[in-house]
Amino acid sequence: MDVGSRDGKPVIALAMGDPAGISPELTAKVVALDDVRDAARLVVVGDRRVFDEGARIARVKTDIKTVVPDPAVAPNDKEHFFIDFGNLDPTSVSRGVAARRGGEFALENYRHALGLARDGRADAVCFTPFNKKAMRLALPSYDDEIAFSAEVVGLESPASEFNILDRLWNARVTSHISLAEVPARLTKESISRALRLTDACMRSAGFARPRIAVAGLNPHAGDGGNFGREEIDVIAPAVEAGKRDGICVEGPFPADTVFLRAKSGAFDAVLTMYHDQGQIAMKLMGFDRGVTLLGGFPFPICTPAHGTAYDIAGQGTASVGATRAALLLAAEMAMRKARRSLVSAANERRPGAVAARGRGQ
Amino acid sequence: MDVGSRDGKPVIALAMGDPAGISPELTAKVVALDDVRDAARLVVVGDRRVFDEGARIARVKTDIKTVVPDPAVAPNDKEHFFIDFGNLDPTSVSRGVAARRGGEFALENYRHALGLARDGRADAVCFTPFNKKAMRLALPSYDDEIAFSAEVVGLESPASEFNILDRLWNARVTSHISLAEVPARLTKESISRALRLTDACMRSAGFARPRIAVAGLNPHAGDGGNFGREEIDVIAPAVEAGKRDGICVEGPFPADTVFLRAKSGAFDAVLTMYHDQGQIAMKLMGFDRGVTLLGGFPFPICTPAHGTAYDIAGQGTASVGATRAALLLAAEMAMRKARRSLVSAANERRPGAVAARGRGQ
Repeated sequence: MDVGSRDGKPVIALAMGDPAGISPELTAKVVALDDVRDAARLVVVGDRRVFDEGARIARVKTDIKTVVPDPAVAPNDKEHFFIDFGNLDPTSVSRGVAARRGGEFALENYRHALGLARDGRADAVCFTPFNKKAMRLALPSYDDEIAFSAEVVGLESPASEFNILDRLWNARVTSHISLAEVPARLTKESISRALRLTDACMRSAGFARPRIAVAGLNPHAGDGGNFGREEIDVIAPAVEAGKRDGICVEGPFPADTVFLRAKSGAFDAVLTMYHDQGQIAMKLMGFDRGVTLLGGFPFPICTPAHGTAYDIAGQGTASVGATRAALLLAAEMAMRKARRSLVSAANERRPGAVAARGRGQ
Repeated sequence: MDVGSRDGKPVIALAMGDPAGISPELTAKVVALDDVRDAARLVVVGDRRVFDEGARIARVKTDIKTVVPDPAVAPNDKEHFFIDFGNLDPTSVSRGVAARRGGEFALENYRHALGLARDGRADAVCFTPFNKKAMRLALPSYDDEIAFSAEVVGLESPASEFNILDRLWNARVTSHISLAEVPARLTKESISRALRLTDACMRSAGFARPRIAVAGLNPHAGDGGNFGREEIDVIAPAVEAGKRDGICVEGPFPADTVFLRAKSGAFDAVLTMYHDQGQIAMKLMGFDRGVTLLGGFPFPICTPAHGTAYDIAGQGTASVGATRAALLLAAEMAMRKARRSLVSAANERRPGAVAARGRGQ
């Protein structure tokens, strides 16, 4: 598969998110940033009028060239593109209101961006914030980004959400389920799977050997079995198995101090057992500035961690920091993947090299 | 019951904690603080030699007068006292090691301090940090401070731990139990009880009308029932019942943002459903500087939130801030209680006043 533009930059398909919040102005702002434009070739997917309205609000100018949806991406080109679906008249948008039309707009853009990456015409996907209520008005069966993306891409292997703040990653074994269901979902296998996925995603983002801390489930990590046995029966065995697999992992640690240790630099990531265990910590540390990565897909999918911020939409004051970080992470991961593919392709052209490598292992 | 010293200051019984950590130096440091000495009359319980060794480490001088255990407290006296049990030779202490003798020492001091308050000879109890391992070596059935204190005091009504950082309080409905047991323990009654106790304790600490936020149990506070129904079935009804009882309470709120709101000043307290929900947040916000209050007893029991800090014991570098805050909170609560008792006694002497108050309600 020959991905990437001719100048070696990864192609990022950037889907415009919910039009009633800050997504239009963020899309325009991030497209205008020199470091983002230098790191990747951008293919924005949405409605040019909504984008231009966002640019007006954000007071930025971009020379991004508009193309019609098909034929969409010209892989040999060095320019940034806007694929204009003409799918939403900005005058029909009520700012600050979750609407079915807004959800349909975001879904169409996102589905197309995922298709570009699935078909090898983009190396990564990013999107500006969605509004879950609008998504559900547009598609009542909409659950979350992971389920939707897996369906579009045809992914059958495990995927998971990663939250990244500065250099600290948070992954979780369980997510959008009731707390009562969590203990039964924790098995040595489910924890090991999350651990391997965390290790793999972090390596593909540039960590040579990510140091992963695993949180316990119970208060004081079970206090030696006094307050629950999950640490002894399933979490510790999964940690030991991870070590045997060559993962740099420690734990289980009490959940109420593990983030303090990670924050001080002792770990690169914390694998938590349930949603709020990580989210309470990450949000207090300022995760609104952070990035959410959907890991486990054949290409990186990144989005700013914050939401649509209906309360400040249209003012041009929204910070582009998290969106910029999302695009730069996607570009970094796509670049590394392309390099790995090149090495692997070169090795395939020299069968001896593969054999030699095989002997060395 | 005629508590308080002749000069109107509350009497605080201060039990020396684990001798192998920073407790001796903290006890000496806090006794030497002018604002603490001004706020209360201190009755320190422990071994004078261990205390003096702590003063030497902390490089402080105190003129606290030593008395033998019985007769212990002279309520008419204005001086600070050290009740010397002579119960631990400091040369026998291995710094940084949890030992049975250290646990016995802390337990004897604490039991005596609780007895002083139970018998009306002190208005509040404080203690410098215990080491749980040492406590269990000394008393294998030792569970936690609440259970031990309730037994010594003969308390049969509910008690609970409160964590206080600056002006923000955190209370919890469940505590040292496995996470799997939490959902079944959450009933409208258990949550209402915790809410009433939180409101009462905060009022007795000087909040005229504490603003209490209640956390949900599930991710996104259940997302309208999609990820669990506890918010709908038990938490919201308990919040509504609290409002009808005149408590200033709101919720349930998603646990991963409620502390951000409280931190920004929207609430005075967060009532959490389980141990780590609050502890993850409080520890990240710097709870080591905070105070733990055992609420629900006939008198306040306060201790610094941090532990014995074996790693820095004996260096004299331990910050006395949290211990100071614990003593000042205990003094404040005891003063307010004494004032309420005076008003109530005065009203009892004027039966007409009580009748008039009754009519006004």
